[in-house]
Amino acid sequence: MNAANAATHSWNRRARQRAERLGRAARVLGHQLQGCHVDTGAAVPLLQAILEPGDRVCLEGNNQKQADFLAQSLAQVDAQRVHDLHMVQSVLALPEHLDLFENGIARRLDFSFSGPQGARLAKLVAAGGIEIGAIHTYLELFARYFVDLTPKVALVAAHAADAAGNLYTGPNTEDTPAIVEATAFSGGIVIAQVNERVPVGSTLPRIDIPADWVDFVIQAPRPNLIEPLFTRDPAQISEIQVLMAMMAIKGIYAEYGVQRLNHGIGFDTAAIELLLPTYGESLGLKGKICRHWALNPHPALIPAIEAGWVESIHSFGSELGMEDYIRARSDVFFTGADGSLRSNRAFCQAAGHYACDLFIGSTLQIDLQGNSSTATLGRITGFGGAPNMGADARGRRHASPAWLKAGRQARAGLAGAAGTPRGQKLVVQMVETFREHMQPAFVDRLDAWTLQEQAGMALPPIMIYGEDMTHILTEEGIANLLMCRSDDEREQAIRGVAGYTAVGLGRDARMVENLRDRGVIRRPADLGIDVRDATRNLLAARSMRDLVRASQGLYSPPKRFRNW
Amino acid sequence: MNAANAATHSWNRRARQRAERLGRAARVLGHQLQGCHVDTGAAVPLLQAILEPGDRVCLEGNNQKQADFLAQSLAQVDAQRVHDLHMVQSVLALPEHLDLFENGIARRLDFSFSGPQGARLAKLVAAGGIEIGAIHTYLELFARYFVDLTPKVALVAAHAADAAGNLYTGPNTEDTPAIVEATAFSGGIVIAQVNERVPVGSTLPRIDIPADWVDFVIQAPRPNLIEPLFTRDPAQISEIQVLMAMMAIKGIYAEYGVQRLNHGIGFDTAAIELLLPTYGESLGLKGKICRHWALNPHPALIPAIEAGWVESIHSFGSELGMEDYIRARSDVFFTGADGSLRSNRAFCQAAGHYACDLFIGSTLQIDLQGNSSTATLGRITGFGGAPNMGADARGRRHASPAWLKAGRQARAGLAGAAGTPRGQKLVVQMVETFREHMQPAFVDRLDAWTLQEQAGMALPPIMIYGEDMTHILTEEGIANLLMCRSDDEREQAIRGVAGYTAVGLGRDARMVENLRDRGVIRRPADLGIDVRDATRNLLAARSMRDLVRASQGLYSPPKRFRNW
Repeated sequence: MNAANAATHSWNRRARQRAERLGRAARVLGHQLQGCHVDTGAAVPLLQAILEPGDRVCLEGNNQKQADFLAQSLAQVDAQRVHDLHMVQSVLALPEHLDLFENGIARRLDFSFSGPQGARLAKLVAAGGIEIGAIHTYLELFARYFVDLTPKVALVAAHAADAAGNLYTGPNTEDTPAIVEATAFSGGIVIAQVNERVPVGSTLPRIDIPADWVDFVIQAPRPNLIEPLFTRDPAQISEIQVLMAMMAIKGIYAEYGVQRLNHGIGFDTAAIELLLPTYGESLGLKGKICRHWALNPHPALIPAIEAGWVESIHSFGSELGMEDYIRARSDVFFTGADGSLRSNRAFCQAAGHYACDLFIGSTLQIDLQGNSSTATLGRITGFGGAPNMGADARGRRHASPAWLKAGRQARAGLAGAAGTPRGQKLVVQMVETFREHMQPAFVDRLDAWTLQEQAGMALPPIMIYGEDMTHILTEEGIANLLMCRSDDEREQAIRGVAGYTAVGLGRDARMVENLRDRGVIRRPADLGIDVRDATRNLLAARSMRDLVRASQGLYSPPKRFRNW
Repeated sequence: MNAANAATHSWNRRARQRAERLGRAARVLGHQLQGCHVDTGAAVPLLQAILEPGDRVCLEGNNQKQADFLAQSLAQVDAQRVHDLHMVQSVLALPEHLDLFENGIARRLDFSFSGPQGARLAKLVAAGGIEIGAIHTYLELFARYFVDLTPKVALVAAHAADAAGNLYTGPNTEDTPAIVEATAFSGGIVIAQVNERVPVGSTLPRIDIPADWVDFVIQAPRPNLIEPLFTRDPAQISEIQVLMAMMAIKGIYAEYGVQRLNHGIGFDTAAIELLLPTYGESLGLKGKICRHWALNPHPALIPAIEAGWVESIHSFGSELGMEDYIRARSDVFFTGADGSLRSNRAFCQAAGHYACDLFIGSTLQIDLQGNSSTATLGRITGFGGAPNMGADARGRRHASPAWLKAGRQARAGLAGAAGTPRGQKLVVQMVETFREHMQPAFVDRLDAWTLQEQAGMALPPIMIYGEDMTHILTEEGIANLLMCRSDDEREQAIRGVAGYTAVGLGRDARMVENLRDRGVIRRPADLGIDVRDATRNLLAARSMRDLVRASQGLYSPPKRFRNW
């Protein structure tokens, strides 16, 4: 049987197809192809020569860096020749990413985050113009690149290439190594757009991707787009956020002795970063908390770094304007021989999952079970890295005081499998009880349930499950879900910090006071925090200008953040 | 304050120390250093010049590939000059790895797996000759390389280097990219031993690690050690194992429609692999199960591959003797332009965690809560990848039929956070009720608890927690723990497949029959399996010779496995 089968079965289809595609490209491009370098004007013909209907394609869309020129070029191919593509990319950020579907070039999508395109994506799905495979957390999508979502063609972005085709990504390495490895070692084809091509004979500042993993390099007519997603102007931090940050530092970070952590994006976490060298210092916490970070180079962390709080930061991607500061603080950041950041989303997500004791982020809705989601009606956005970092890492086996204490609290008094001693990841959601337009952050039912029906998803798009969430922090206080021993207690603990929302008003006052007596709920007063101390004066920097000053002039904010 | 601090604080210590170390090496080596290439005889002086007391060092010890020459050289350095090293390496396999501690060169150890050295390691720990930080699962240790266990010096192994210092790892890339990236981009120093140095002008078959991530290359006097850990001779598979494999295929793989999976090492899983093209075929399961694998190139999988069952395999490392077969089956394996395997433990572990629906492995002990461990008295071994792949991936958000069905079974009838719909990873432990020397696989108390006391660990060394285990498979049947609704039910489900062990004999017969009626426990008969059909004739290969034949002569087993 085997012999017969082997006789009829071809085992080098991938290699043959690859050779055919490369042959077509060589024929079509002619003198527009020199070595691996393709003339800028030949991008569309190259894609038409390489791609076949139904191909699985990874168009590099990162949280920051975008292969925008290749995206625009792909949107221009002849849909008669190239169609039904299956796009597998972490972030859907550009209009062109969706044009592909409207133009009939692509049909199916597997992704992690759609950000600004969330509303348009939802409309396209509703209109049947796009078929969504699944929404992943980043590391989960990268993992599938090596199992059942391996790209046939990868379209990536780098800063520069040399004559041989070695790539220099600069600070924004991000997803590129994971994408290229999965594609190049499975008989796929890798096409890179670059901002610069260094002349023959001269070398790159460093090599991030070896030339023999890359098939074609195209110099883009303009530098690839990069978004400064993680920059927050301290001027916009409210005193409520200062109060919440004080509670986070004293009630959670100090309480558990959190040394290794990740912060989600936002003003809430920026406030924490800006309070470390002031409020944190006054509590004598320097060296006791927040020493190691899995974090992009947040400008708001500059004062804490300058004050010597931070020993190491590994980053998913970089942040515009932080280049010189990172270069001058190479003891803290992961940098290459060229002095610029080496980011790597795959490794940083692994670090966030397995090497951090705490993840703290924000959400739009939390229900009575503690399930939280940023998914709202009419938008399909995805959650990026939150599910990976906001999940208990059940495979973790190394201990730390923070992790052990959380585990003890979760298991105290339990028997059987649930009572077996084990540590637990601290997963905190930090929200004001009402968000903009007086939308309550606490709801009886997540919009995710309606979204599931609308989009026909197998499960509701929940960002972080109540089972994994350990603390909810609002301006009213901290609810420690680890210490709740029943669904009722959990519900009342949540209502007990939900303020004047309908959920909060629905609390059982006696039960809530009882939970407070047990320390399950803690108000600012219970933490010895005087609400009157929560002023903006506590912020180590109160403006972008302060951040620049704190950086010794090394941080250079993007124009839009300069108000002087 | 910040300015003052910055004035007193140096921000380029790492770069300065690196320059000092490189300068020392240049002075000591003189003409024995040409470019990045160091004479073989200068290995010990190089290490003495580079290393400083207390350094954190990653000595590449993989599951297969060993940087054995560098290990031997490190064991020879002068302990007066180089001492108190903190070793951070995934596998402790060589005597030299422990000599370092006995010779006073190293003091602290963070690792994942010690295999054959487990007993000696336990003695050293008991004698206070070694300080264990923690025992990790692989991906967890790699994650800490980027957070709080970043190596200052990495000693790695590659197959070949070119004049510039680019490295070719060949099929056993394994941990090397993760180790080198963490070290090279944190101001550390990377030293590689290679089997071959290609002459100036000629190029490597492919580049796995770029030259500018590598500081020194030394040609080893002999090729680096590689262990064929995943080879199992089909001749040694028993009919009990055939029966258990039939139950796995029909009662679990077919039941859930498992398409993406990982197999632990052993004869139990080898039996499953060898039954796919025979028993699996007879059940019409081809194309319905086992299409995508996160797996080393197991020779036992050859008949299934030849029969067209397998679409893709991504590997942690390679397996000796499989080189030509992999090259000729490049549609299935991840291979480079040179045709040889590109393995990558970090990505394959991510694949096992996030992109697989099932992990099946074996253990030495299972308790009444379903906690399992291979840790036994007098040995400290660690668990390698099992905790990562044998844990529910709580960050996973993409759905598959297998994952959804497991999740439904686990949550049926539950309310609150625990009742929120969610998928679950299938985690199966496959054990005979008695292992060699009539040791029962089921125990009231794991040895792990005694080990914890003996070694003063924060938690007992449990490999897979009962909370994460979904099925136990023995010759007596399958216990589906997902469907148990109380600690009592779980205990009886476990006793109900524990055969004639004391744990099995302690069962409550009525409760067990009730669980069987509910399908929580399923016997071979319940699965429509006639025990008399479980013969070795069902194995697609019954000897190493059969495997070679099935491979069209492409598989060439290591000598020790050749009995013809």
